[in-house]
Amino acid sequence: MKPQNDTFLRALKREKTDFTPVWLMRQAGRYLEEYRATRERAGSFMGLAQNPDYATEVTLQPIDRYGLDAAILFSDILTIPDAMDLGLSFVPGEGPQFAKPVQSEEAVNALFVPDPSEKLRYVTDAVTSIRKALNGRVPLIGFSGSPFTLACYMIEGRGSRDFRTVKTMMYRRPDLFERVLDINAEAVAQYLNAQIEAGAQAVQIFDTWGGMLADGDFQRWSLAYTKKVLDRLKKTHDGEAIPSIVFTKGGGEWLSEIAATGCDAVGLDWSTNITRARQVVGDKVALQGNLDPFVLFGTEEVIRREVRRVLDGYGAVGNGGHIFNLGHGINQFTPVENVQILVDEVHQYSRHLHD
Amino acid sequence: MKPQNDTFLRALKREKTDFTPVWLMRQAGRYLEEYRATRERAGSFMGLAQNPDYATEVTLQPIDRYGLDAAILFSDILTIPDAMDLGLSFVPGEGPQFAKPVQSEEAVNALFVPDPSEKLRYVTDAVTSIRKALNGRVPLIGFSGSPFTLACYMIEGRGSRDFRTVKTMMYRRPDLFERVLDINAEAVAQYLNAQIEAGAQAVQIFDTWGGMLADGDFQRWSLAYTKKVLDRLKKTHDGEAIPSIVFTKGGGEWLSEIAATGCDAVGLDWSTNITRARQVVGDKVALQGNLDPFVLFGTEEVIRREVRRVLDGYGAVGNGGHIFNLGHGINQFTPVENVQILVDEVHQYSRHLHD
Repeated sequence: MKPQNDTFLRALKREKTDFTPVWLMRQAGRYLEEYRATRERAGSFMGLAQNPDYATEVTLQPIDRYGLDAAILFSDILTIPDAMDLGLSFVPGEGPQFAKPVQSEEAVNALFVPDPSEKLRYVTDAVTSIRKALNGRVPLIGFSGSPFTLACYMIEGRGSRDFRTVKTMMYRRPDLFERVLDINAEAVAQYLNAQIEAGAQAVQIFDTWGGMLADGDFQRWSLAYTKKVLDRLKKTHDGEAIPSIVFTKGGGEWLSEIAATGCDAVGLDWSTNITRARQVVGDKVALQGNLDPFVLFGTEEVIRREVRRVLDGYGAVGNGGHIFNLGHGINQFTPVENVQILVDEVHQYSRHLHD
Repeated sequence: MKPQNDTFLRALKREKTDFTPVWLMRQAGRYLEEYRATRERAGSFMGLAQNPDYATEVTLQPIDRYGLDAAILFSDILTIPDAMDLGLSFVPGEGPQFAKPVQSEEAVNALFVPDPSEKLRYVTDAVTSIRKALNGRVPLIGFSGSPFTLACYMIEGRGSRDFRTVKTMMYRRPDLFERVLDINAEAVAQYLNAQIEAGAQAVQIFDTWGGMLADGDFQRWSLAYTKKVLDRLKKTHDGEAIPSIVFTKGGGEWLSEIAATGCDAVGLDWSTNITRARQVVGDKVALQGNLDPFVLFGTEEVIRREVRRVLDGYGAVGNGGHIFNLGHGINQFTPVENVQILVDEVHQYSRHLHD
């Protein structure tokens, strides 16, 4: 069933739309007081993410508040490694940590592809519940971390500035690193397919850490495994096409290669010139992005000007196939009223680009 | 007076050399036991950096150990803001902090261009002392942070993942931000000219944080002020040309614009394909880089293979104008013996590219 507002899905297919659709990475999050209230009731972050009712509630909050053109499943990027029994916990002020990081041959041997219908059932239940609650208003996006990005957390055991442990395994034991990535690729594909079967109408793969790889290593260790996932994804469900988006933070130098993986859209961070990006990828894929999230800390005048700069930057070379977004997740300290300015400016200003 | 080994300076001028010269960002540093011993005697990091004898000692350590083709002044990137009386201190485990971050109009009004012959005298004294100690073996590189990168620390008051305070000033009070950058540009130019007069034979501007700016903002807030510095630099001293290198971490999407500033060489981080970089900049500038520093955590076979990949990547389109380096500073946990493997491989393998 098509959503009442299917602008996002049509833009992903590079079809003509009346305006440029907009959603924001991490749009359901701590910058919203209603999110913080739900989070409080849930007791903990994982209590929130693993409860389909709460997940549904927070997923819909930014849709209700701002009139965004797509919802994205509220979940964590580390659900898969958590389901691999690596002992995920969230340490206040320090972020996610794994009690059993994958740093030895034995640890790699112990890895397995989690069955999405078992330990990840709370995710697909949330997808079903959110679709019901959305009641066809806007499409729902499912998502996963990329095989490489998940491996970064699994091997390092936590976030890092340089992922030294990951790169040491990559350069000393490429055989082990390959096995981790093969398992992750299969796990991500099964996980996204389960989300699609439960009702996700598009999927996004977040390659948050691919951009810290050297040229050559990115293609070998990140992009090749993202492509393996894409190759295994269901392309349609219930007669509707399921488009896929690949977002690589810091991937601006590899756009043509990312666009060649078979995805439907490429997400851009804010460092990329969107006019140049359009020229590089041609009509191969749609583009999503790419406002600096910190523009939302600026004055109203600056927000409107910078939104128009992105829209004009894309619009200068064609008016189909652009999904407006930030170049990274929205910051937790973002003033809520500035998000409304952004959404209104995208919707209003973009109409004149879609004649 | 030309150094006995002037390969580095000739490569910067894109002249023919017998082999590819190599130096490593942060080559005098914690990964060396002899550095840690000197640091111990100095009592503190600033005690080390502000004492010309100690600075001379540690600058020469990697030259003595590895036979590198250039020395770089041992100093800190925050000498200028320190001389602006912002109250620099180094908090163990947390990095540099300023007691008086520049976050208000009053704080901006209080900024001044420090006279390099007064509060920064210890730096020029170190340059003189190092030149004497080097006794013409290899050239000495002077350096500074870029106006924008210095502003990041000055305004944020410390390192940051996202420099939210900096970007908030940029998007809310561009007038104040411009004044900070104008002062920094003048301060950096005077500082580098003082290093040149004291004996620095080349200079490098480190734009460590320019890469976190949006396209458009980078050109306006970082590159324009780097160019102001370059425009004011002495181009010759004692009859010898003084070449300049601009290194922007994460700047791979802006190479042609960086190359157009008037610098002699552009430093590349490891995410950039060096063959493509050569095509983009043509014969306009030399290129410096760009091995991932974490390759040095790999096996000997991997180190030699990855060194050759960079050399061949450049060499495929011409054999002049390449200075081998890492794509970022060497990591403090780097195994010392692996650095020798890198240096030897560069010197040996590159000879066949320089027929």
